[in-house]
Amino acid sequence: MTDKILSSIRDFRDERDWAQFHNPKDMAIAISIEASELLEHFLWKTPEEVEQRIRDKREDISDEIADIAVYLFELADNLDIDLTAAIENKMKKNAAKYPVDKAKGSHAKYSEL
Amino acid sequence: MTDKILSSIRDFRDERDWAQFHNPKDMAIAISIEASELLEHFLWKTPEEVEQRIRDKREDISDEIADIAVYLFELADNLDIDLTAAIENKMKKNAAKYPVDKAKGSHAKYSEL
Amino acid sequence: MTDKILSSIRDFRDERDWAQFHNPKDMAIAISIEASELLEHFLWKTPEEVEQRIRDKREDISDEIADIAVYLFELADNLDIDLTAAIENKMKKNAAKYPVDKAKGSHAKYSEL
Amino acid sequence: MTDKILSSIRDFRDERDWAQFHNPKDMAIAISIEASELLEHFLWKTPEEVEQRIRDKREDISDEIADIAVYLFELADNLDIDLTAAIENKMKKNAAKYPVDKAKGSHAKYSEL
Repeated sequence: MTDKILSSIRDFRDERDWAQFHNPKDMAIAISIEASELLEHFLWKTPEEVEQRIRDKREDISDEIADIAVYLFELADNLDIDLTAAIENKMKKNAAKYPVDKAKGSHAKYSEL
Repeated sequence: MTDKILSSIRDFRDERDWAQFHNPKDMAIAISIEASELLEHFLWKTPEEVEQRIRDKREDISDEIADIAVYLFELADNLDIDLTAAIENKMKKNAAKYPVDKAKGSHAKYSEL
Repeated sequence: MTDKILSSIRDFRDERDWAQFHNPKDMAIAISIEASELLEHFLWKTPEEVEQRIRDKREDISDEIADIAVYLFELADNLDIDLTAAIENKMKKNAAKYPVDKAKGSHAKYSEL
Repeated sequence: MTDKILSSIRDFRDERDWAQFHNPKDMAIAISIEASELLEHFLWKTPEEVEQRIRDKREDISDEIADIAVYLFELADNLDIDLTAAIENKMKKNAAKYPVDKAKGSHAKYSEL
């Protein structure tokens, strides 16, 4: 998101001549696969075991989060989407979809609120 | 990632009393689900159709990217992971796993390089 | 898996002239997206809420399971994979990866047993 | 789906005392993770490379398909869902959502047809 990170991501890709593979569809696939790798850390685990896993595998989990972020930032960059603006814009919509008085203390989807 | 965005994300959650639901396992599930929603835009589509989709549904796609980012930033924050540091750390590892001379022009996984 | 189901799946696809879209990569994407839709029913929910959800949305959940199965059966069929044989073969490997004396009562991945 | 396969799946689980972990939420997570592992075989690949991958890694891909099927069959069984009936039921709905005259030769989602 910061210019420095984005520019490292671009350099890393371009030194390896990988832009040719990084079309939006494969980038979205990659994000989905990395999200599954993060989730796998918590599979079959109780809340207590999840907390223990986070203590035991802190760096691995941090790496999975970073993997998702790297692909996500590059995809936004490739599509000329300003991620900060996109987040601000989406959070305004979320605020309208989940008004505090209706959504407070509820995890229902907006369509089921 | 910027403090301002993080602080909006925390405020949004806390106004709705949602921290109780935002345990790491469900956050990882949410990231995975949002990643699938992004990917669905490109399902069954050729590269040309993907480009057309991006033109036609630019804001929807931007929203999906933002949804992933919001959950990812909050999860990192909840785990006391500095996302910028996590990315820099992971990119150093990636540079070692994918040395330029071996990885250039190849999309093979490091274990198959 | 039964011939009758497989033949309905093929007929459904061919009446719509959809084989042209059903390449293995997009089929795998479709399976992943449908799996996320199933999972979304359980997002943010406690075990008790999951049980309630299953009572409340039994047919929706059954439909999501069917969606995954339909794409999975067609993909196996397209790849000339006999799903019953594939399952038997994989279960033998699983039995070797997860020997009863080591795996009993543990949800650890084989690489961490 | 056949009784023999289902009964092997149940025996495998019960010999390892795994029913305690196999709640519907974790089963759905497992299906999603396995679906991603299948998809990873095709990441960054052109249609020709996908075909080559299938030739090169036929057994690995068959194993991933089997992994999804095993969890899916067990989940349906745990929920007392008859998978064959679920598929037949869903395919009737799909036939209504995707009438031949509208859907023929189109990969648009029913909501965009």
